[in-house]
Amino acid sequence: MQPIDLLLEPRWLVPVEPHGVVLEGHAVAVDGERILAVLPIGEARARYAPREHLQLSEHALIPGLVNAHAHNPMTLMRGLADDLPLMRWLQEHIWPAEAKAIGPEFVRDGIELAVAEMLRGGTTCCNENYFFPDVQAATYRRLGFRAMIGLPIIEFPSAWAATRDEYFDRALAVHDEFKGEPLLGTAWAPHAPYTVADESFERIRLLSDQLDLPVHLHLHETAHEVEEARRERGARPFARMQALGLVNDHLIAVHMTQLIDAEIAACADAGVSVVHCPESNLKLASGFCPAEKLRRAGVTVAIGTDGAASNNDLDMFGELRTAALLAKAVAGDAAAFDAASTLRAATLSGARALGWESRIGSIEPGKQADLVAVRLDAIEAQPMYHVISQLVYATGRNQVSDVWIAGRRKLHERALTDLDVAELRGKAQRWRERIAEA
Amino acid sequence: MQPIDLLLEPRWLVPVEPHGVVLEGHAVAVDGERILAVLPIGEARARYAPREHLQLSEHALIPGLVNAHAHNPMTLMRGLADDLPLMRWLQEHIWPAEAKAIGPEFVRDGIELAVAEMLRGGTTCCNENYFFPDVQAATYRRLGFRAMIGLPIIEFPSAWAATRDEYFDRALAVHDEFKGEPLLGTAWAPHAPYTVADESFERIRLLSDQLDLPVHLHLHETAHEVEEARRERGARPFARMQALGLVNDHLIAVHMTQLIDAEIAACADAGVSVVHCPESNLKLASGFCPAEKLRRAGVTVAIGTDGAASNNDLDMFGELRTAALLAKAVAGDAAAFDAASTLRAATLSGARALGWESRIGSIEPGKQADLVAVRLDAIEAQPMYHVISQLVYATGRNQVSDVWIAGRRKLHERALTDLDVAELRGKAQRWRERIAEA
Repeated sequence: MQPIDLLLEPRWLVPVEPHGVVLEGHAVAVDGERILAVLPIGEARARYAPREHLQLSEHALIPGLVNAHAHNPMTLMRGLADDLPLMRWLQEHIWPAEAKAIGPEFVRDGIELAVAEMLRGGTTCCNENYFFPDVQAATYRRLGFRAMIGLPIIEFPSAWAATRDEYFDRALAVHDEFKGEPLLGTAWAPHAPYTVADESFERIRLLSDQLDLPVHLHLHETAHEVEEARRERGARPFARMQALGLVNDHLIAVHMTQLIDAEIAACADAGVSVVHCPESNLKLASGFCPAEKLRRAGVTVAIGTDGAASNNDLDMFGELRTAALLAKAVAGDAAAFDAASTLRAATLSGARALGWESRIGSIEPGKQADLVAVRLDAIEAQPMYHVISQLVYATGRNQVSDVWIAGRRKLHERALTDLDVAELRGKAQRWRERIAEA
Repeated sequence: MQPIDLLLEPRWLVPVEPHGVVLEGHAVAVDGERILAVLPIGEARARYAPREHLQLSEHALIPGLVNAHAHNPMTLMRGLADDLPLMRWLQEHIWPAEAKAIGPEFVRDGIELAVAEMLRGGTTCCNENYFFPDVQAATYRRLGFRAMIGLPIIEFPSAWAATRDEYFDRALAVHDEFKGEPLLGTAWAPHAPYTVADESFERIRLLSDQLDLPVHLHLHETAHEVEEARRERGARPFARMQALGLVNDHLIAVHMTQLIDAEIAACADAGVSVVHCPESNLKLASGFCPAEKLRRAGVTVAIGTDGAASNNDLDMFGELRTAALLAKAVAGDAAAFDAASTLRAATLSGARALGWESRIGSIEPGKQADLVAVRLDAIEAQPMYHVISQLVYATGRNQVSDVWIAGRRKLHERALTDLDVAELRGKAQRWRERIAEA
């Protein structure tokens, strides 16, 4: 008998790869941070002597969800200002609040609150995009949460950096400091085509190639962005990114609500990943990403919540459901973005966008044990015809019972194992007072 | 001191009327089935001697949600078949399953399951639309759930009735049998313009006027429906309903994804209520209801889930959130369908659509005590800047803790007071076996 750390026996196992499969009577063997095997329960019991043996008799076990676009410190601004046109929202509410609040403590406390929310909702990995990436990285490391840390580049001075050179210098320092951290990675995060100059994009392309780092970019979020660029520069932002050499398989293009067929084809050819943030796009009236067209063209489509200031939650179960529903109406095809493809978008495609598809995103031997158990015995999940359909169309994040990241249990029957909820609530309350005053 | 049944002291009180108001330090006094008063806590304690006194110290108290379009027996078909084009979905899955299952037991058991789900999600009233209205009415009465019972009219024989005359005769018998039931009402429910003949619509108009009953009709659900009608009859279905005299303040028009400006103006002029079912419209790729245009024109816009076979839940918190988000993108205006207007759509406007605005839909003295307490202390609801925004954009139905209908407690700290969950699960399981076989 081989000693291992953990043997999980879920009622249903949804590995995501192979696609669309639901296994019954199967176990997942975990040792250390990795998945050792997926095998029939009888074989597993004969082969392994697990330190911990868990029967999940009413649960589906799925890979941890990957939130492929997040501004998690902004969780402290959840619901600060809603129902406003974009520019009034930014200029009169978000930016003044950020000017007052932003700094290492804000980033740390916001991420703590976000991690608590993400874990309780089955998210085990996020693609972070904010200032103070050093604080981000240190916080995610301390909390044992998997994250791709965006290295922000923008042509405006901020509390994080004053000049272009300082942005790049600090970015490279963060990259060096956290290189080799098992749960972390770094990505270039130029804010958007309308806030970043060609010279910065050129440096990013060079450094992205040299260091093999993704480039995490807001792109074609609104028709206004595309229209302004055409008027001011004579080209759509996507064409400008092509000319700058950024349309390649490092690119994580977020939002993409405005796309012509040639751009979709170019994304497919170049191996660009698109992050679809349906709820943010709806709430800010940004437009509709042609998610099904992208998927059919062979583009990797991942799913993100965007920040809690424009959503207003970090609920990936809600987000993937919205993605599945919305894609159908946008495509005019009720068969678009079927349940299995949607679950894949929220897991393996997110992993792939980050360059981590060999590490996470599915329940396969050798991969990291980022696992989520979802209770399916509630009245709201009855009757049970098809497990994947139920997970996508009829599951609330509150049904998530247990979560592991790299083999460590982070949520235990809905209780956070290493975060103090009362303390988080107190901190959120203090930030609310400080920000509401501003 | 006046003896009363119940005094509720919520942290926040959202009465819906007056619009957009959040009261703190206020109590709701309930006696029998009615709300007696809304008043400051100090005054309430000085004036009343309540049999039950409940402090809801982390909760918002809101009016019960009104699901303005439901096919609740179909809850037993939740997730039976997804991701299929509409006609294949109906012809190959839903209709064969219904042919096998439909009958009094199916209607009764489906409604029981639906009531459990609705109560656990803060819904206290539904606008039902299915066969066997006699069984529906008896079941809702037995469970103490408020419902408008649709009297189905369709030009096809069914297990409920064989001929047009039989449909009308049985409808009138149900109307007579349940007249005066305190929690129930009846409405004519002609299925749709493409399944009901002019002669039936004429009888319905007459009987709706005579008996003062609403007319609950699927209308302009898809572009296909409108196009076919124009080709076959030379008129859009809405114009045909106008010619038949049905466009009046009895009409509850469901879906309405295809509307020209003149139709919107006609709805406003005539006092038509529109029920917006955003998730069903998305999932079936039916189209986008111009909810904000309707609202601005002064049309009463209510919200419905549609059946669980095309949603796949009866989650009104989810539905109102989707309505708020989607309306913004459809209108191209992030200020559209603001949080307070959305909460109103899911409560008072639903009541108004049913002709029950003097009875339910807001927390006002004299109205029925249909009340819902929502816990707002979870991490997912922090920080708390604006209560109504939090309720609309960041609240899951699992935060509903307690529900009263007509003063009776139906949910007690998330436990159903008069439904046996294990029994419901068993029944759902047996229906699944029977339907999956078919």
